[in-house]
Amino acid sequence: MMPSKNHIDRSIKTVSGLVHKTLVLTCSALNAMTGAQLYFKCENFQKMGAFKMRGAIHAIQNLSEQQKASGVVTHSSGNFGQAVALAAKNLGVTAYVVMPENAPSVKKEAVKGYGAIVTECESTLEAREKTSEKIQQETGASFLHPSNNLDVILGNATAGVELLEKHPDLDYLLVPVGGGGLIAGTVLAAKYFGHNCKVIGGEPFAVDDAYRALQSGKIELNESTNTVADGLRTHLGDKNFPIIQELVSEIIRVEEEEIVAAMKHIWQRMKIIIEPSSAVPFAAVLREKEKFRDKKVGIILSGGNVDVTKLPF
Amino acid sequence: MMPSKNHIDRSIKTVSGLVHKTLVLTCSALNAMTGAQLYFKCENFQKMGAFKMRGAIHAIQNLSEQQKASGVVTHSSGNFGQAVALAAKNLGVTAYVVMPENAPSVKKEAVKGYGAIVTECESTLEAREKTSEKIQQETGASFLHPSNNLDVILGNATAGVELLEKHPDLDYLLVPVGGGGLIAGTVLAAKYFGHNCKVIGGEPFAVDDAYRALQSGKIELNESTNTVADGLRTHLGDKNFPIIQELVSEIIRVEEEEIVAAMKHIWQRMKIIIEPSSAVPFAAVLREKEKFRDKKVGIILSGGNVDVTKLPF
Repeated sequence: MMPSKNHIDRSIKTVSGLVHKTLVLTCSALNAMTGAQLYFKCENFQKMGAFKMRGAIHAIQNLSEQQKASGVVTHSSGNFGQAVALAAKNLGVTAYVVMPENAPSVKKEAVKGYGAIVTECESTLEAREKTSEKIQQETGASFLHPSNNLDVILGNATAGVELLEKHPDLDYLLVPVGGGGLIAGTVLAAKYFGHNCKVIGGEPFAVDDAYRALQSGKIELNESTNTVADGLRTHLGDKNFPIIQELVSEIIRVEEEEIVAAMKHIWQRMKIIIEPSSAVPFAAVLREKEKFRDKKVGIILSGGNVDVTKLPF
Repeated sequence: MMPSKNHIDRSIKTVSGLVHKTLVLTCSALNAMTGAQLYFKCENFQKMGAFKMRGAIHAIQNLSEQQKASGVVTHSSGNFGQAVALAAKNLGVTAYVVMPENAPSVKKEAVKGYGAIVTECESTLEAREKTSEKIQQETGASFLHPSNNLDVILGNATAGVELLEKHPDLDYLLVPVGGGGLIAGTVLAAKYFGHNCKVIGGEPFAVDDAYRALQSGKIELNESTNTVADGLRTHLGDKNFPIIQELVSEIIRVEEEEIVAAMKHIWQRMKIIIEPSSAVPFAAVLREKEKFRDKKVGIILSGGNVDVTKLPF
């Protein structure tokens, strides 16, 4: 079922005051480089450093009081684990986060630092899911999927809404595509708050499941996770794929070196820190300059959680 | 002669529309880390990436039309060369920038990219000054000193004014101290636009000429330039020292490893790129937490021009 404008209106109210209304930045140097007018929605400045906070807050707020009392559980080695941990803490809810035992200790510490109960497991999807289910059974906690959950998607949509409220005349809105939770939310924002604003996904060639899914008409998997854009290694799900399939205009794929170059341009010219996944849409604009020339192009910079001592350049 | 409030009022009008009114950012994580309320004035987002644009624009605008027609000259291996180059370009004035032949080619290219005429010379102060004088004689260009020039100081003051207009009740305003042009301007801003706002300089122990000058009552030199804060290796001058001597509350010195740690905290928690010199005031707050606890503290993040492939962490 396609969410309605009412759903989005409610999600805006629900997250209000609980997430940052992040800045929209422009950069004359990057405009000159592309020939487009670029509007960057800085979710790298969001609480815990990524848009994921929006979906986590919205999903937890939509639980019943009884559900909240039993806590929430997710499995994630990335930003969503941190988002659930911080959102739960801020809402007074217990969070259980299942993490692979080989996850970087800095990430485990971040999740623990937000007060979540971390359970380690083997580094396979099966082990993660099994461990999550066990916690659900033992505690009654509600499971929150990072991207394939309608309340997460509706929370994510608020980033695009905020951008379109400031710049209602965007011709394009570009976001990175990983699990599909951000692009599904964004395309709903564009449908209800844009004026013929086309939503385009940026995706690494190495993990181009969304590109292939739009071609084949069914969810596709990735055979590799070999991309610098570590937030985009996952695949679409049955909750977000129908929305993406119906509303997304196009997926533009980019090479690894294009991602690194785009990231470096944004760091050097905008003086802001973004993670590699966030550079993918700008890489797509650079790759297809003609399409975007003289257009107003919104880009959601999805996050800024990167180990500054281990950069790809 | 101490500049008056009228001088500052005029400088605000002069630079208006020609420099960015940069953002003021806050960060709850860094507030929690220090116990202070911190307000960061983001001159790293200024045109060409540093506050130096303000002084360059103001100084060039204060030349007569005849002077403008003959151009401007400066010698700099750092941000002021870029600032003069871009300011001159934007104002339709010819800029001559003398740079040491061993300056990084990326810096030379940046200055040339802004349209300035670059003259290379030996890497000594004597050679730089001689080359500048020769250009002055040959072209009639006006010499602009990066920090020891009253019009540069008055232009720099506008950063502090903008911060105090947003937050008039700051208890402290901290800036890095190099040649003294920023702190002299800032302390004038605090005198005329603050309410008992104390201005404190942050300085590396390795190049603590300003700290020693305030003790001895005369301009001191540095015996070493061995600091990661490459913008702070110079010493005070006869135009800015009297202002600093009369109005600055204190200089806090910090160790090299404190500068690097402070820089890393700002990168990681604020997701913005600052150069090492800009981290010195925050390092000073971390070093003397008790002084700043529960106080409202403004910090001018002076610039963001750093080679992201050569980081000190």
